[in-house]
Amino acid sequence: MQKELAVVLLSAGMDSAVCASVASLNFRLALLHVQYGQRTALKELECFYKLCAYFQPEKNFVASAMFLKEIGASSLTDESKPIPEKEELSIPSTYVPFRNGIFLSIATAWAEAIGATRIFIGVNQIDFSGYPDCRESFLKAFNQAIQEGTKPETHIIIEAPLLHLSKKEIIQLGIQLKTPFELTWSCYQNTEVACGRCSSCKLRLKAFEEANLKDPIPYQL
Amino acid sequence: MQKELAVVLLSAGMDSAVCASVASLNFRLALLHVQYGQRTALKELECFYKLCAYFQPEKNFVASAMFLKEIGASSLTDESKPIPEKEELSIPSTYVPFRNGIFLSIATAWAEAIGATRIFIGVNQIDFSGYPDCRESFLKAFNQAIQEGTKPETHIIIEAPLLHLSKKEIIQLGIQLKTPFELTWSCYQNTEVACGRCSSCKLRLKAFEEANLKDPIPYQL
Repeated sequence: MQKELAVVLLSAGMDSAVCASVASLNFRLALLHVQYGQRTALKELECFYKLCAYFQPEKNFVASAMFLKEIGASSLTDESKPIPEKEELSIPSTYVPFRNGIFLSIATAWAEAIGATRIFIGVNQIDFSGYPDCRESFLKAFNQAIQEGTKPETHIIIEAPLLHLSKKEIIQLGIQLKTPFELTWSCYQNTEVACGRCSSCKLRLKAFEEANLKDPIPYQL
Repeated sequence: MQKELAVVLLSAGMDSAVCASVASLNFRLALLHVQYGQRTALKELECFYKLCAYFQPEKNFVASAMFLKEIGASSLTDESKPIPEKEELSIPSTYVPFRNGIFLSIATAWAEAIGATRIFIGVNQIDFSGYPDCRESFLKAFNQAIQEGTKPETHIIIEAPLLHLSKKEIIQLGIQLKTPFELTWSCYQNTEVACGRCSSCKLRLKAFEEANLKDPIPYQL
């Protein structure tokens, strides 16, 4: 029997790439990337296409959600706000309002149109950035909204296989599944060489260190 | 005390215009329109700006979600599929996959960025087109997703004041609130003069007839 089709939200970051590796074990892949005017948009797009070359998905789709840049209110999309280099106690300025709600909505529309039965998203709530739209309670509520808001014959379920893993465990899983970490991009700040100082670089570097592995991408620092 | 700010999803159709009239009673207005490559996009945009001139909102925003046209799977966004003129027993071909999920996600992001406390949406589940994302159960689940997926200090609630009204009652409410029906657009098909034959025109004409009123816009038929 043919495997079912899964939409994978692929930002081209480390977590989403491991998530794609997990999805590929049991599903045909439809890789979805969203461009939303984030600082490192072009680098992420380049990595997305490299990851498509690696994963050879059945379908891929790049959706433009530039309204997120127009809406602003985040240091990722508003270049007048600095990217923080220290950990913040409250929700960090890199939080993009309801970004995962928007990503999951686009994924749902595409999944319904192409007949996919799963949406994979690489969020994790351990070692995460404190974004409210990365929590299990959010995914659970959104999953219910999908069930209520799509056709009766549509059965789309959100899968978040990394939700309860630490960053270190995510890397170990990726190594086991041969995720091409060298093709991924996590830095919030730069588009050439990762800065090594932003919160996203720090989380990534710490994770590789804890896993006793060397991150294959170069860093400024 | 200053009134709170509400985002109103304004397609420029009859229902959303009445919804804006209801919202204006108790809230400052932030009017949101989404362009998604629908057949009558430019006419809707023209009506949106005319309605902005009428309502004088504090903010207005036109978001581009052209990925819905690229995703297709609907006769509203795929011009190779005919617009139905007969009632359909199942979900009609005009259904756009998870459109209200996408609209509500954009509205949530904007509401969070501008500090709005409500999102008004003009859906109704009586005399409706059979779209799954117009049902109360969907709105309830999505409302929960908003609570879980936004900042703790954010309090955004979905309001659907027309949900349990018939089309006739919606018109009566609009007349009472002086909604400028002459500035609204419902036709799925045309961009100059409403066709009078598509399911959306038929619902609208039937409603005016039941309310013993004359629709102020011209029709081909």
